[in-house]
Amino acid sequence: MQPEDGLHILGTASASPSKNRFPSAHLLKIGGRFFLLDCGEGTQMQLRKYKLNFNRIEAVCITHLHGDHFYGLIGLISTFSLLGRTKLLKIIAPKELKEILEIQLKASGTMLSYRLDFVDTRLEDILFEDQEIKIQRILLNHRVFCAGFLFTKKSGKRKINLQACHDHEIPKNQLGLLQKGKDFTKDDGSVIQNELLTLKGAKQKKMAYCTDTRFFPEIIKQLKDVDLLYHEATFLDTHAQRAEQTFHSTAKQAASIALKANVKQLILSHFSARYKGLEEFKKEAQEIFDNVVLAKEGMFVSF
Amino acid sequence: MQPEDGLHILGTASASPSKNRFPSAHLLKIGGRFFLLDCGEGTQMQLRKYKLNFNRIEAVCITHLHGDHFYGLIGLISTFSLLGRTKLLKIIAPKELKEILEIQLKASGTMLSYRLDFVDTRLEDILFEDQEIKIQRILLNHRVFCAGFLFTKKSGKRKINLQACHDHEIPKNQLGLLQKGKDFTKDDGSVIQNELLTLKGAKQKKMAYCTDTRFFPEIIKQLKDVDLLYHEATFLDTHAQRAEQTFHSTAKQAASIALKANVKQLILSHFSARYKGLEEFKKEAQEIFDNVVLAKEGMFVSF
Repeated sequence: MQPEDGLHILGTASASPSKNRFPSAHLLKIGGRFFLLDCGEGTQMQLRKYKLNFNRIEAVCITHLHGDHFYGLIGLISTFSLLGRTKLLKIIAPKELKEILEIQLKASGTMLSYRLDFVDTRLEDILFEDQEIKIQRILLNHRVFCAGFLFTKKSGKRKINLQACHDHEIPKNQLGLLQKGKDFTKDDGSVIQNELLTLKGAKQKKMAYCTDTRFFPEIIKQLKDVDLLYHEATFLDTHAQRAEQTFHSTAKQAASIALKANVKQLILSHFSARYKGLEEFKKEAQEIFDNVVLAKEGMFVSF
Repeated sequence: MQPEDGLHILGTASASPSKNRFPSAHLLKIGGRFFLLDCGEGTQMQLRKYKLNFNRIEAVCITHLHGDHFYGLIGLISTFSLLGRTKLLKIIAPKELKEILEIQLKASGTMLSYRLDFVDTRLEDILFEDQEIKIQRILLNHRVFCAGFLFTKKSGKRKINLQACHDHEIPKNQLGLLQKGKDFTKDDGSVIQNELLTLKGAKQKKMAYCTDTRFFPEIIKQLKDVDLLYHEATFLDTHAQRAEQTFHSTAKQAASIALKANVKQLILSHFSARYKGLEEFKKEAQEIFDNVVLAKEGMFVSF
């Protein structure tokens, strides 16, 4: 498992899997925590193949209820239970998914060993938030209700600068106050400012996941300056009309969103099975935006 | 694709898939026709991997509603539709499966390009029958309702013996009557018997698919003399108690059924993930019944 923030790519296909491409699934590592983004058929096999730890996944985020984005979820949650998971699992998805999972668990007489906690993406703009991570929905424009996800890793608290504290002879029982942002007052009444005794915390980072959607510039304001943008690119420019009709995007359109949002890096994926080689996707996108990665099963894209 | 009757093994895992073992799925070729037996997650990927023709599958037979036997079905039927299938697909399964499929198709706004025809295994003993093939249920003994399948390829009609017809100078317009079993009467009134002018048709063959079940001798009478018996063997003898508790069988128990039913060949499969090597399954079974095959993904077992 890679140490830094990044996205493990598990599936790059659109619609149905082909011999070498699995349906959409991604394991996002951010702030040392794990979120599964979409869960197409075979996701649990892909997680095993790439030796990714099932049990650290705290939430599964499903963009929409087309099968290539969620047919692997029932198998995954069943396997979690067989493995004896006890930790709650959040399912962040359109609400119909709850019934779909429950009817299948009922038919097999399965009592999960852990609790599912559903968050309906139709209702909330902020889907999850704690001290470290915020997940917001990004409303997309697809044939059915579809919401992407904006992950923000909040900037970390300042950390004690041990060397500086040693040099200034700060008593250990004062370190807690320093961490809370207080300055230190010496016995002689002089003050040492907090910034001299602490180090900057981790930088805020943002990752946005946008699939499936037609070209939809309304999302740009939410994507401003994100570190990593995943944007679907089902088609090449030659099939722009087909993209429009099927509510998908071309590589150029994804690049145009990336450019206007001033993102740092763009991942293209969700490729139509009609294309065998994919280099043309990169070429077309790079006419507009330079820092483009073509997704591939097994790849880890750090940010 | 192999020319003769046989079973393509697509998945040999029990419960959840492991790195190298997929959940239950088998493509039965019998009399030139194709039936899918169970459809665990990833079945459509396995069919592609082994270059098996999706579109010739006329029925999917699901033994029971534990996920490792049917979680791949919704993806497969969706892909059939994306590929433009028009031919009706029979789903032979416990009736709850209908609702499970329909709720998922509804959530994704999918209108299939072909019709599904459900046959409820809870209701009927003869699940399908036409001039060539009969499918009967085999009631098994598992934690939920579970029915295996007995396939009978009926003995074929006698075929015209072209050489004999030529030697006896049979007029061509009489061949149809010969095929219907009539004798031929010459102008001089003498009769040539049908058996001299025709060849025996194809021999009747039987294949039985029994999973998941605890040791259940009640099935033996239905399995008498079958050409190929697939019987689950989740456990080795050392875990016989666990087999009993979980309503599964050991390799020895499967072999004992094969022996008593006088079957020609036995396939063992549905192996618990706790076992890495599988040779012990064969060894234990062969103490009781000799003609044993250990299932493996990609294998074709002819009969």
